[in-house]
Amino acid sequence: MFQLIRFQVPGQAESWGMQSDEGMRDLGRSFPEVGTLLEAIGQWDSLRPRIEAALKDAPLAPAGARLLCPVPPHGKTICIGLNYRDHALESGMDIPSEPVVFNKLPGALCGPNDEVPLPSCSSKVDYEAELVMVIGKRAWQVSEADAADYIFGYTCGHDVSARDWQLGRPGGQWLLGKSFPNFAPIGPAIVPSEFVPQPTNLPISLRINGETLQDSSTKQLIFNPNELVAFLSQCCVLEPGDVIFTGTPPGVGAARKPPRFLAAGDVVEVEIKGIGVLTNRFVPG
Amino acid sequence: MFQLIRFQVPGQAESWGMQSDEGMRDLGRSFPEVGTLLEAIGQWDSLRPRIEAALKDAPLAPAGARLLCPVPPHGKTICIGLNYRDHALESGMDIPSEPVVFNKLPGALCGPNDEVPLPSCSSKVDYEAELVMVIGKRAWQVSEADAADYIFGYTCGHDVSARDWQLGRPGGQWLLGKSFPNFAPIGPAIVPSEFVPQPTNLPISLRINGETLQDSSTKQLIFNPNELVAFLSQCCVLEPGDVIFTGTPPGVGAARKPPRFLAAGDVVEVEIKGIGVLTNRFVPG
Repeated sequence: MFQLIRFQVPGQAESWGMQSDEGMRDLGRSFPEVGTLLEAIGQWDSLRPRIEAALKDAPLAPAGARLLCPVPPHGKTICIGLNYRDHALESGMDIPSEPVVFNKLPGALCGPNDEVPLPSCSSKVDYEAELVMVIGKRAWQVSEADAADYIFGYTCGHDVSARDWQLGRPGGQWLLGKSFPNFAPIGPAIVPSEFVPQPTNLPISLRINGETLQDSSTKQLIFNPNELVAFLSQCCVLEPGDVIFTGTPPGVGAARKPPRFLAAGDVVEVEIKGIGVLTNRFVPG
Repeated sequence: MFQLIRFQVPGQAESWGMQSDEGMRDLGRSFPEVGTLLEAIGQWDSLRPRIEAALKDAPLAPAGARLLCPVPPHGKTICIGLNYRDHALESGMDIPSEPVVFNKLPGALCGPNDEVPLPSCSSKVDYEAELVMVIGKRAWQVSEADAADYIFGYTCGHDVSARDWQLGRPGGQWLLGKSFPNFAPIGPAIVPSEFVPQPTNLPISLRINGETLQDSSTKQLIFNPNELVAFLSQCCVLEPGDVIFTGTPPGVGAARKPPRFLAAGDVVEVEIKGIGVLTNRFVPG
């Protein structure tokens, strides 16, 4: 399985590579003409066999290399709400007749192991484990039948939400409550679609300090990845490196009795079988 | 008055300069060390007196130069809903107790004179004239008293809205209906704040094919620019080049009896006294 990463050695330019049992293989050094993971994704069809051949000789990144958010920070972060049957029921909402679409502002995106500050103006910061699609090609008005061509791969995502800002505000828009700095961690790696034969049959779970709070399967998705790409691309152009959060299963803090919100020091792990484990610590804002 | 522009001669790199009675003054050629308008904004305090001294000798851009969107396309487009007293009444909504915040995806931003495609999947594309703030410095948790320092200047904006996508959809999020390609024209120029002493006392109007459909004043703003910057910067980091649409006055098509929506061939002008006139043509999508 390929687990593609972006990483950086402090003081050096970003590089990209592959997570392996031995450590991070630095493919940026093996392919100096391909400067970033986004460029690698752009020429994937020709690069892929060359990567396979080069992999065992690729140098390991030095100690001190730090994983980065696997996509660059300027892309779109589009999110789907209420997209698990079991979570829609938990929230007391109807099963939506079409995808509920919102987004996060660019400053929300961050990487594996990045700290997430708890904003001082919120006391209800909630967690949501999500399967995240990474777009590989410019998509505009693509059909559901063609949509898979535009999904480069998958990663884990955490849709952090300040419920007291998301809900109950004039106009009902979710944007601000979802867009605080680092409220969209993703990673640790992008697994290309060819290694994810059944994206709608993946166990997905979330743990806080080791305790499991969400435990479901992407089988519960109402709208699947291909349907989402087709739907969204009617309205906006999806670009390489854009990410789409596909919704969360039940077990979120706001739906618990009593509710459970995140506290400073909490370590949250999102695990999706066959994709990876994304870990982030929450700290005072 | 300074009217700062971005422009491009086909086949050449973008440049920046000043709109004048004689044409576009190419300040990018006078200050080759300052590559873009965003860079000029970043060093404005030191650059401003040098621009004043250099202006009369700055070369004119050649015929064929085309105005661009005055900010680069990757920034945030944040919008405020229901922010005119008279428009909130027209919409049958309560005066909001705090700003209603939504945004547009990056592909919506475009420039003066750019064509706006009417999406084939909408039959209710509506117009909204707006005063737009341009952020000049990174703003995070700034007070209302300090907010003016972060507003570099103002331009005209057109918040184009597909009402059949904005309203009546599951979840109630406005994002998709506001984010079709080129649904956020701004321009033609950025007027620095020092030349806009009273941003809350500006006549604002919108014409379709010469007929006036909106005609009000920024006096009607519920939340003023400083309040908006302070409010938004609690939740997200505002970056140089980000734009904030401040809301629209009454007269929008959906509130008319009968409703009036945009048709292919319509030419829409947004005029804000002391800021400029933004013109865009609507074309089949």
